Order: sequence, then structure tokens, then C-alpha cells
Amino acid sequence: MDQVFSNEQVLRIDMGALTHRFEPLPQPYALLGGRALTSRILCDELDPTVDALGPNNKLVLAPGLLSGTVVSSSSRISAGAKSPLTGGIKESNSGGNTGWRLAQHGLRAVIIDGAAPSGQWYIAVIAKGECRLEPADDLIGLGTYDTAARLFERFGKKAALAVIGPAGEQRMNVAGICNTDPEGRPSRICARGGMGAVMGSKGLKAIVVLDPGTNVMPEVTDLPLWRENAKGYARELAASPSIARYRSYGTASTLELVNKLGGLPIRNFSRGQDEQTEAITGLQMAETIKERGGQTSHSCMTGCAIQCSNVWVDLQGKEVASSMEFETNTLLGANLEIFDFDAIARFTKACNDLGIDTIETGGAMGVAMAGGALPYGDVAAVMDAFDQIRRGTVLGKLLGAGATTVGRVLGVREVAAVKGQVMAAYDPRVIKGNGVTYATSPMGADHTAGNTIGAKVDHLDPAGKVALSRDLQIITTVLDMLGFCAFARAVYATVAEQFRGLFAARFGRPITDDEIRSIAIQTIRSEIAFNRAAGLGPATDRIPEWMRTTPLPPHQAVFDVADEELDRIWESD
Amino acid sequence: MDQVFSNEQVLRIDMGALTHRFEPLPQPYALLGGRALTSRILCDELDPTVDALGPNNKLVLAPGLLSGTVVSSSSRISAGAKSPLTGGIKESNSGGNTGWRLAQHGLRAVIIDGAAPSGQWYIAVIAKGECRLEPADDLIGLGTYDTAARLFERFGKKAALAVIGPAGEQRMNVAGICNTDPEGRPSRICARGGMGAVMGSKGLKAIVVLDPGTNVMPEVTDLPLWRENAKGYARELAASPSIARYRSYGTASTLELVNKLGGLPIRNFSRGQDEQTEAITGLQMAETIKERGGQTSHSCMTGCAIQCSNVWVDLQGKEVASSMEFETNTLLGANLEIFDFDAIARFTKACNDLGIDTIETGGAMGVAMAGGALPYGDVAAVMDAFDQIRRGTVLGKLLGAGATTVGRVLGVREVAAVKGQVMAAYDPRVIKGNGVTYATSPMGADHTAGNTIGAKVDHLDPAGKVALSRDLQIITTVLDMLGFCAFARAVYATVAEQFRGLFAARFGRPITDDEIRSIAIQTIRSEIAFNRAAGLGPATDRIPEWMRTTPLPPHQAVFDVADEELDRIWESD
Repeated sequence: MDQVFSNEQVLRIDMGALTHRFEPLPQPYALLGGRALTSRILCDELDPTVDALGPNNKLVLAPGLLSGTVVSSSSRISAGAKSPLTGGIKESNSGGNTGWRLAQHGLRAVIIDGAAPSGQWYIAVIAKGECRLEPADDLIGLGTYDTAARLFERFGKKAALAVIGPAGEQRMNVAGICNTDPEGRPSRICARGGMGAVMGSKGLKAIVVLDPGTNVMPEVTDLPLWRENAKGYARELAASPSIARYRSYGTASTLELVNKLGGLPIRNFSRGQDEQTEAITGLQMAETIKERGGQTSHSCMTGCAIQCSNVWVDLQGKEVASSMEFETNTLLGANLEIFDFDAIARFTKACNDLGIDTIETGGAMGVAMAGGALPYGDVAAVMDAFDQIRRGTVLGKLLGAGATTVGRVLGVREVAAVKGQVMAAYDPRVIKGNGVTYATSPMGADHTAGNTIGAKVDHLDPAGKVALSRDLQIITTVLDMLGFCAFARAVYATVAEQFRGLFAARFGRPITDDEIRSIAIQTIRSEIAFNRAAGLGPATDRIPEWMRTTPLPPHQAVFDVADEELDRIWESD
Repeated sequence: MDQVFSNEQVLRIDMGALTHRFEPLPQPYALLGGRALTSRILCDELDPTVDALGPNNKLVLAPGLLSGTVVSSSSRISAGAKSPLTGGIKESNSGGNTGWRLAQHGLRAVIIDGAAPSGQWYIAVIAKGECRLEPADDLIGLGTYDTAARLFERFGKKAALAVIGPAGEQRMNVAGICNTDPEGRPSRICARGGMGAVMGSKGLKAIVVLDPGTNVMPEVTDLPLWRENAKGYARELAASPSIARYRSYGTASTLELVNKLGGLPIRNFSRGQDEQTEAITGLQMAETIKERGGQTSHSCMTGCAIQCSNVWVDLQGKEVASSMEFETNTLLGANLEIFDFDAIARFTKACNDLGIDTIETGGAMGVAMAGGALPYGDVAAVMDAFDQIRRGTVLGKLLGAGATTVGRVLGVREVAAVKGQVMAAYDPRVIKGNGVTYATSPMGADHTAGNTIGAKVDHLDPAGKVALSRDLQIITTVLDMLGFCAFARAVYATVAEQFRGLFAARFGRPITDDEIRSIAIQTIRSEIAFNRAAGLGPATDRIPEWMRTTPLPPHQAVFDVADEELDRIWESD
């Protein structure tokens, strides 16, 4: 930890005082990025008992350690804060170009503190060594697409935007922070845990990261070494069949697998398999997109070679939404008994424009359907519900509070959530490794914290799933720290060496696999300590009781990894 | 702990199997009653992580150790369960005749386990050594008054009833268990923490405790000693000016004091004093009741000499509600900017008939008003809101979920709650001892766990309030265990000896003050351990952040008892 680049900085914005300050990157943060840095800053600076939507919470944005270049899939942006949804620490990361642009300006983190007086709204315009807060009155109430259009008009199309929609303005738990993709769609969302609500609570409608003009990248100590490893990594990506599958079918191709395993959430997680899902497979999606002239492969961030994103178009070939994802197709599709891509595409667009998490929203609507407040399978009712979220009716605000609150209000016990956050499209009764991740991740039920679906294991067997989840939680944290997309994990075994090579090239010091894992484990442990200090005891590290007792058809499986095993997950290493 | 009465029993009802079993009182429970027994049974038998509204929660009813006689104010009934409101252990106690009747039948506890199949409802009819479960289809949807009327018709007017209303049927967090008073009003409620929701989740609409026919009382070892102490205690009660004040003005007389201190919740806890409260003082109440021909003094349980209860009548002298209480007058009155006893009487009756906690409901409506979902000061809107709770509209269910959930959904930070339970009518920024009780009681924000308002101290000064609250939490637990009403505390210093004498007479063994305090402290510690195991960490033992930072007019006070002091409250003793 002996190297700091003199031109790398942290930007602090105080929304209460409407001031900002650039600070040199503190030495202890020199080798931290992404989730490792957002969580470290929160653990260092935040009283874990603060009100997540009060002025004393902090929102931290941090690109990864290797972000800011066009090395494929390396410029994820992490958004961290105390979560209004889970009541614990949160990191939620996303593609789009925000991470790339921030890193280009030498910014390792942006820390947003305080809150503007109630009713006042601002945008923050950021470049190297520059930050302006400007009134945002003209943007309030606008969806993310209109917001982005106005901001691109003012600041040029090459800026990167991180904006909130009407849900974030209303400080809803489902609200995320929407980052713009290379074409300017505000469709790449730091979605989970209400990070958009935290941004809204501070009176910040958008962050505009200006185009640096020339193709700068962050300081790199050993450029030849950088190039060599970047090339090696690109070669591995190009050769990987898993990556090719993502490029052709996107994440949507996961649906067939999970449905076949019997662990897909259908009708509010009440059964795990359904023939009707044939209408919403990855293959079906790709075929329809091709027929209609949309895009089956698309980069969510500049320079990404994985290209798992896509653009869904209507029968006339007109764009409806980008991107159709497995989680969305399931939580807002199968989980609501809607097996229709055209409907799901409209839902996706509505979520992106409202600036909300498709997983938490789909989960909330599923619980609302189980509680009789919405009808299953009714596309018009779902579209109306989105409109209610936008208008902030009582039902809209209820859905916006997330699945756990909907269950609490409507008296539905069957809420698939941990620490108040709904599960992704893998029922833990069948995909038991993901159950372990849901239960033990300090992030609440979050598949991106350690997704075991790709492992060649018997998912129904509880044996070995704690070790599997632990390993993947660590690797995921490493990727989140470096700035890499989780899909790079498909080739992690073969490219880990190149990742360490890129690190060595950038920082002028080698790093061992043990060192990098140790930072990841320390990150997770500090997050758990934060949660404990926030009041979340070890008993919150559990799959809900009903999923341990109510069998899921067709396998009639329950979640049965022993509590004692869960509690010991971080004891080793 | 060497004495067990062979004829004292525990009744277990399994609502899943629709069976019951009488068991001899286990030896370790011989000297436990009320809260000490409900909490001990829950700690012994319940996995703290169970779903509070699932079949694995247990509802335990227990009269006090000295209940079952007409010794004044000794027959309180404790209802305990894991709370769906707080997520922790709960004991909620009440007057009425349920405790008296259960103790007459030699029942020290009724434990209700399991759950009837969804949609099936039952009543439990209990007498000595007898228990029948009968279908309750004809009672479903009825308010508590109609329910009581039908049950009295079937089982005679001398039965004691514990019933739930439409809110308990809907498993709302505001739902309590309504116990009938000597005239048969279902108006004495184990109100706090959703005990009615737990009863509803089991498919149990009512418990009917039959009249034993003759005037039996529980076994007493030394009857002359019993009589002597009962007489001494009655003398002290009769001589006490505090008790005389309760008899004349009820709890309502507390309002002047708290308003004068500047700690009364007005307009969702946003100011602590208001001249308009002159319309709803205890004096005003008593005068109006007298003018109209109602009852200013009334016993909520047979034989009570304190008679703090009352009967409010309309201009024609017709009964509207019993009883008008300080907490209700404040939370559903001043807190909603409604300063009108006739309105508050209608609210009281609506709450009793719905079977809901007036404190949690008033708190929830105050937050709904702060969030714009209801207008302040609007009597018709409040009456409509009660109707929505009855019908289970989305707004009705939201209010029924309690103040914390309303705040979460409507985006209102200013929720005066601890562990999800709203505070009573003492703002902790001014009545700091009650703030300590709210924060540190395992029951959540509950003034009845240790109310410091009667202490001759400077309530605004944080110094000494932890010791004060601790002492009162212990005494309150002692009273809850013996079965005495909290108002007996007004004479506790002078009657503690008689209480111990009654104990010695009943159980044939003396008990020291230290012994009895030690049971109380052990009870509280075990409850805290339950909460920790349920996932509620020490950081949940806190007054909400906004009350530590937002000053309350007119004193501009904040809650400022140090966290470290709060954390050490149970270290000594």
C-alpha cells in the first residue's frame, strides 16, 4: 500500500451547505475501489444507526480500481449507503458509463453528505477538479428518459449521467440510480437497496460527469504491462463459450436452466416450474428480436466485449426497452404469471423511466397479487400500478416500499426476502447455494453477491453450498472492487492472472491472489460489523421461515442448509 | 420454589390439530405469573426466529400470581407472544375479567399453538378441566361488541370473554385482544404489539371463560394471613390521594401535567404544548360526564377499588364509549389536532369495536397526516379511516400495520417509535425517563413498561433517568407478575409489604423484596435475550435519530440520554 497517484482524488459534496471539496485520495484507500471503497468509507465515516433517509446518511459512488479504460467490462460503478430497504450497509453496482467517466477524471470516489432543504433539488456537474451544483427545478417530476434528454442537450451527448426518476424523488425503497449507456439510455441501474431514495433524500436529481474531451484514462505505472494483460484478457473473453452465450442470448438464457431445475419463481414463489415459460426463454427472445430488427448484442458500457445487453423492439421495429434481463423477465413476468415479452418490455421501460429496481418491484407486485391487491396475470393492472407509483397513490407508495412492506401491510407471510430485500429469480429451496448467499450476504437477498447457478453441482443438495457461496461471495467482491462485471466471472479462473497483471501495471506493485482475497474478506467482514452495529443481529441472516417449511413444487423442496453452517460461513479464511 | 398447588394447571390448545390438553403447572413455573410466566414460557418453548404470524408462534395468556380474587386490581391478564409489530417478545396486559375467571378455574396459563386451516375460525370455551373448540363462522366479520353480545347470549352474562375484532381477523399489527369488563363491554384491551393479530393468525376469534358458578378463588395456603393483608392493602388504597385522583378524573388527568411540562404529542409529535388541550383535560372530562349523567368512576374488573375507568355519554345521556383514557385522548386527539371529547369518544368506541390499540392507531394516523394521506384535525376523515380499517382497503390495511410502516410507505421520517412500536403520550425529548423506558424496554416504546411521569424529578434533565427508568421497569414487572394494575404503583411504597404478605398467604412461603425483584430482573433479561436471538441487536434500543436531533417546541429539547448509559441499564442489579 505504498503508492498513491497524486492526481487521484475524492470529491465530497455537502448538499446541506451546497459546497464541495476535492481531497487527495487518502493513503489507506489507495488500493480500494468499487464496493471495497464504498463500504470502507461508510464504515469509517458513518454512524450505523443513522436514519437511512436522513441528512446524516452518506451516498458514496466509486468506480472500480481498474475502471476508466476500455478494457472490457471494467468500468462498473458502485453506489453505497446505508440502505432504507435493509437497514444495513449496501453496495449496488451497475454498468453504464458513469464509472468510466468518473475514473477518467481521476475520481476514485464521490461522497454525498447532508441534504438540501426540503423541496430544493439540484444537479451536480462534475469534471476533473471541478464541481458545480445547479438548480434542478425544471427536471423534477420527469422520468429518467426525459431527464437524460434535457441534460444531454445542456451538457453534450458524451457526458455520463447518473439520475433518479420519480421514485427516487419520492424516496421509495425500490428506487435506484440510473446510469446512461453508450447511446444515452438511463437504463443501467444501481438498482438494489434504495440507493435512488438516498440520492433523492439529499435533493440530488442527477450527477452529470462531463466528457473529458480527449480519450484520457487513469494513471497507469507500467503501460506495456497493462497492454499485454489487457490483450490476454480480451483473448480469453473472445474464446469463452459462456461469454458467447451471454452475447447471443443475454442473461435471459438463464431462464431455461432455472425452470428446468424447478427453482424459478412462479406466482409469487409458489411453484418452481412452468411450461408457459417457453414463451419467455432466451432463445425465444433472441429470435423475436432478430425477426423484428432489434439488437440481440449490445454493450452497456463503452468498450464492453461481452455485450450481454439487448434492445427489444415492437412489431414495427421501434425500440421499446433495453435491456431484457432474466431477473426482470422472471420477477415481473413468470412471478406475476405474465409470459409475454411484449408486456415485459413495457414493464422494463416503465421501471427504467421511473428509476426502480425490477427485482424488488416485481417481488412487491407478486406479494400484492398474493394479497389480493392486484390480479395475477393482468398486464393492464401492472401498467396501472406503475402509473400509481409515478403518481404516488397509496397503493403506488406501498409497492414502492418493497415486497416486505407490502407483505406486512397486506398480511401475506409468503414474502421471499432476507433483511427486507426480495430475492432474485432463484428460489433458495432449489438453488440452495443462492439461498446461502441470500441469507449470509451483508447485502440482504442479492444474487449478485455470489450467484451459484453456474456451478456444476446438485443445486438441491444442501451439502457443500456454504463453501460454494463463500467462495463466490469472495470472488464477486473482488470483481466489484476491481470494477469488473460479474459476467467476467465466467472466465475468472482463466483471467484472474490478467486481472492481477492489470492491477500490477496500474499501481506499480504486484498483488497476490491471497492479498486480493484478503481485501475482499475484510470488506465483507466490515460490512457485517456495520450491520450488527445498525441493529441487524445474526438471526437476520436467515431464509424466511415459510421457505424452510413450505415445500416448493415440483421437487417439494425446502431450504434446509443448517443454521449452524450459515453462522460459520465467515469463520474460516 | 417448593410449593405447587395440585389443582393449578396449564391449558394447551393446538389450533392446528384442534386438540387441547390440561397439564399440571410445571414446578419451575410455580412462582411465576403474568408477564413473568408468559415470557418464561415463550423463552422456554419458542424459537425466537419464528414468523410472528405463522403457526409456530405461540400465544400465552396468564393471569397474575394473585389474580382470581376480588383483592382490588389484582386480576390483570397478560397476553404474550412474539410480536408481529416489533419482531421481538411481547407482553401486553389488560384489565377486564378474563384474568379473574381463568384464575378461578385454577388456570395459570393458556398456551395457544398452531393455526387452524386458512379460513376456518373457532372459539375456545374454557372452564375448570374443560375446553371445547367450536366453529365461529357466525362471528366472523363482527365487531367486538356484536361478538360479545352473541357469546353472552350463548354462555351467560357472567362469562368473561377475550375476543378479537375485524382487525385481528385481518392480522393487523394494531390488533389487540379485547377483554370484557364487569358489564360485558369488550373494552379492556391487551392492546399493544399485535397480540390480536397473533390470535387471528391461529383462527381463534374468541375465548370464553365460563362463570364457575360459585364464588371460588384460587387455593390460598393461609387464609387469615391473606385476609389481613388484603384489608391492609384496601386501607392504603382508600387513603391515597393519587388513587382518589384516578377515581375522580381517570387517567385523563395526566394531560394537564404533560401539557404543562411541554411533552405532549401534538400534530404528530411536532410540538409539546397547546392551549387547545384545555378542551380535553381530565377536569373538563369529569365535569362533562357528570353534567350528562355518565360515570366518572367505574371498575374495569370486578372488585376494583381504584375505579379509574369511566363511561362517556352523549348529550342525551346515551353511552358512547368506555373508557376515555389519557393515551387515547392524546394520540387520537391532540396528536391529530382534534381537541373534542365527543369526537374522541367516537374514535374510542370505533377502536374498541375494531379491536385495536388506540395508541398505535393514533400514532399511525398522525404519521399518515404528516405524510399527506389524511388531513389533520378532520373528524370525518378519521371516522372514514376507521371504516377503511374495518373494510380492509389498502389505506385501511396500511394504517392497521402501524405507525412505522405508514412512515416507511409514505416517506415520513418523523415516526415516534422504538422497535417499530409507537410511543405513548409522553414525548421522550421532554419526559426523558420515559424515553429511557421506550428505548431499553424489550417491549419496544411502551410507557406501561416503566412510566416515570409520576416521579418528582426535572423531566428535562437527562441525569438520573436511566436509574429511574430501571427502578420503575422492575417495579412494573413485579406488578405485572403479581397481576396488579400499574396504578397500584401509586401506593407501591406503602403496600409492597401487603403484596408480599398476600403472596406468602397464597403460596405458604414468604418472599423477600430482593427475591421478587430478582424474578423481575431475570424476566427482563430473558426477554432481551429473546430479542437478540430474534435478530434485534442492541442498536434497536434507541430513540429514533430525528428525536435526538430535531428540537421539540416550546423547550427546544432533544432526547440526550447518552447511548452508553442506555446500554448499561441492566448491568447492575
